Amino acid sequence: MFKINENYLKLPGSYLFSTIAKKVNAYTAANPDKKIIRLGIGDVTLPLAPAVIDALHGAVDEMGKKETFRGYAPDLGYEFLRSAIAEHDYRARGVEIAIDEIFISDGAKSDSGNIGDIFATDNRIAVCDPVYPVYVDTNAMAGRTGDYIAAEERWSNVIYMPCTEENGFAPQLPDEEPDIIYLCFPNNPTGSTVTKPELQKWVDYANRIGAVIIYDAAYEAYISEENIPHSIYECDGAKTCAIEMRSFSKNAGFTGVRLGFTVIPKALRAGDVQLNSLWARRHGTKFNGAPYIVQRAGEAVYSEEGQRQTKEMVAFYMNNAKVIREGLAAAGYSVSGGVNAPYIWLKTPEGMTSWQFFDYLLETVNVVGTPGSGFGPSGEGYFRLTAFGTYENTLEAIERIKKL
Amino acid sequence: MFKINENYLKLPGSYLFSTIAKKVNAYTAANPDKKIIRLGIGDVTLPLAPAVIDALHGAVDEMGKKETFRGYAPDLGYEFLRSAIAEHDYRARGVEIAIDEIFISDGAKSDSGNIGDIFATDNRIAVCDPVYPVYVDTNAMAGRTGDYIAAEERWSNVIYMPCTEENGFAPQLPDEEPDIIYLCFPNNPTGSTVTKPELQKWVDYANRIGAVIIYDAAYEAYISEENIPHSIYECDGAKTCAIEMRSFSKNAGFTGVRLGFTVIPKALRAGDVQLNSLWARRHGTKFNGAPYIVQRAGEAVYSEEGQRQTKEMVAFYMNNAKVIREGLAAAGYSVSGGVNAPYIWLKTPEGMTSWQFFDYLLETVNVVGTPGSGFGPSGEGYFRLTAFGTYENTLEAIERIKKL
Repeated sequence: MFKINENYLKLPGSYLFSTIAKKVNAYTAANPDKKIIRLGIGDVTLPLAPAVIDALHGAVDEMGKKETFRGYAPDLGYEFLRSAIAEHDYRARGVEIAIDEIFISDGAKSDSGNIGDIFATDNRIAVCDPVYPVYVDTNAMAGRTGDYIAAEERWSNVIYMPCTEENGFAPQLPDEEPDIIYLCFPNNPTGSTVTKPELQKWVDYANRIGAVIIYDAAYEAYISEENIPHSIYECDGAKTCAIEMRSFSKNAGFTGVRLGFTVIPKALRAGDVQLNSLWARRHGTKFNGAPYIVQRAGEAVYSEEGQRQTKEMVAFYMNNAKVIREGLAAAGYSVSGGVNAPYIWLKTPEGMTSWQFFDYLLETVNVVGTPGSGFGPSGEGYFRLTAFGTYENTLEAIERIKKL
Repeated sequence: MFKINENYLKLPGSYLFSTIAKKVNAYTAANPDKKIIRLGIGDVTLPLAPAVIDALHGAVDEMGKKETFRGYAPDLGYEFLRSAIAEHDYRARGVEIAIDEIFISDGAKSDSGNIGDIFATDNRIAVCDPVYPVYVDTNAMAGRTGDYIAAEERWSNVIYMPCTEENGFAPQLPDEEPDIIYLCFPNNPTGSTVTKPELQKWVDYANRIGAVIIYDAAYEAYISEENIPHSIYECDGAKTCAIEMRSFSKNAGFTGVRLGFTVIPKALRAGDVQLNSLWARRHGTKFNGAPYIVQRAGEAVYSEEGQRQTKEMVAFYMNNAKVIREGLAAAGYSVSGGVNAPYIWLKTPEGMTSWQFFDYLLETVNVVGTPGSGFGPSGEGYFRLTAFGTYENTLEAIERIKKL
């Protein structure tokens, strides 16, 4: 008699963004005449850059001709893409990453969800609170998080590192010792970042206690200030303790195209076992590569034109972020983020929980955001808005909220 | 101190096809003047069908315009594709599958590797022997297979169901009771199939003992004979015991495009838990959809033109299969498969192991195949050739082998 993975049954509710989608769909069905503005999910709205479109058409043509058709991709991804990454994302910032330390994937969500595969079940994880739900949910699925305590909205065996107004939304080194530490900077959902000396503290701490850092740098393209690290490998010693994940979703609008990568330095070891070789085995066994045409699209992001065009896209969204941040501040909201990240994090009005504020915004001004409590217990009383809408919608949403 | 998943260390050698690639690369480096013909890995060589190319170009254009750009796909995949699947792959064969029982993915390899996530670690698996390595390797990674016994080339806690010349390459119901049964028909690697009454026996058996069948139907497009089921759901009662996986790789040449799907009927339950909802949760949490452009390409496979063009591709490869099958038989080899599948399974010459024959063919006639023993202990003494080469190369490879 087969048995299911009972850990799945411990997961509360559904995946956060599925719940939001259901609520919005129900509202829309009941109010078909209302114009909903979605600043909830971190999905982009600008079309792909012309350089990317050209690369896609070119690669599609190749796939239509016998001489240039490509079947299975190399396990780690095409070298042309891994070389471009090593050059532009790392060497250009003074970091040397070998191309066989880079694994091309279908996105950072898959990678951050799947990375747990190569670790034992009895590792203890530490996460920022609030946090991108995928880190915690996938560890819950693996049986690493203990039991869910509904009254406290937290798992019994997770080390939560609160990031609140009180500590400037920066996690502090935890009192209890974790084995695996998830860090995401610029942060989703708070939009905050850490400076290089602050990140160096984490690297030193991980090396000291023998922990591994899963570093999600999906939003690095949005960094506008100096002294904010774009890669954890800018810190000394990070290669012996950190795995870094990147995405093409937010810098180049690939949310519907699907491309990302994970870096696992060969210096990262457990005894004499390289984590790089474990991930290579997983990658080669449970995955069959990102599409050739999509890898060519990724390569185009690094071309001169692609860089210029995608930087314009980022600037466009960051202008939206400014509109939201300044508009909400003017309306009396307490706001953070939106300077080095496409996320704006605000405090809900006095006496309103995150979900109450979600319902309130949806029903009164037809604006969809994301309840902070959906990201963890310390997110309660906060709310996330994203800069990925159109300019017109962003402006209108803020005008509507201002009038409340 | 973090701990790795020690199960990975139990895995013998590297992934089969990585090992083959390394051997071939080494030979090529040492003998750059030799013309290698690859009939090893199941990778296609024909370019994508014109209908698919048109759909890809069209979808790329949509992604380049603000009005038609698409971001994140729906969790389960776009409805246009799931509807086409429900209609063409199931309703047309008298099987009713709801569109929310279909999960679009980046391929059957990922799905067959990831499906273990929703099952407990202490399920006992049964596999055909020989078998597609992904089923066993991914269960080994999850700790379900016991220890690897190198001398016997088998895992201590896997139920092997030998498929050899003696039983016509058809697995028999096992003596020990499995919880999860992997079946793949038309079979990779043997190229054999089962009739509908034979498959019905498996469905009845699984329902009787409470086992779940993971049914890999990636090669169904190659079925040429009557009374061979294209889907396990053609059997009565399969919806309460079977998960089916399909791929666009082999019927439409999508090995480098990446698209597949998994069907989990809502009637498939463990107590009151639907496996469909567990997989939906996994899919929504650890995966972010196949690319929009690729899903449009998949839709085009079901168009009238797409059907005609992809059927021509299958016919082309099946002609190769005939060339191999008849050529080898004429040369005195004992051959099976190649009638309802793109794989030809032959016995190695007297006194030669599978890997010896691999080296022999590579070194004497520069033809690459796949050693049967790479697929499991009962594959020893067999060898797999695939029909996915070009016609010219296939013909030449067989001529070379004939002259041995």
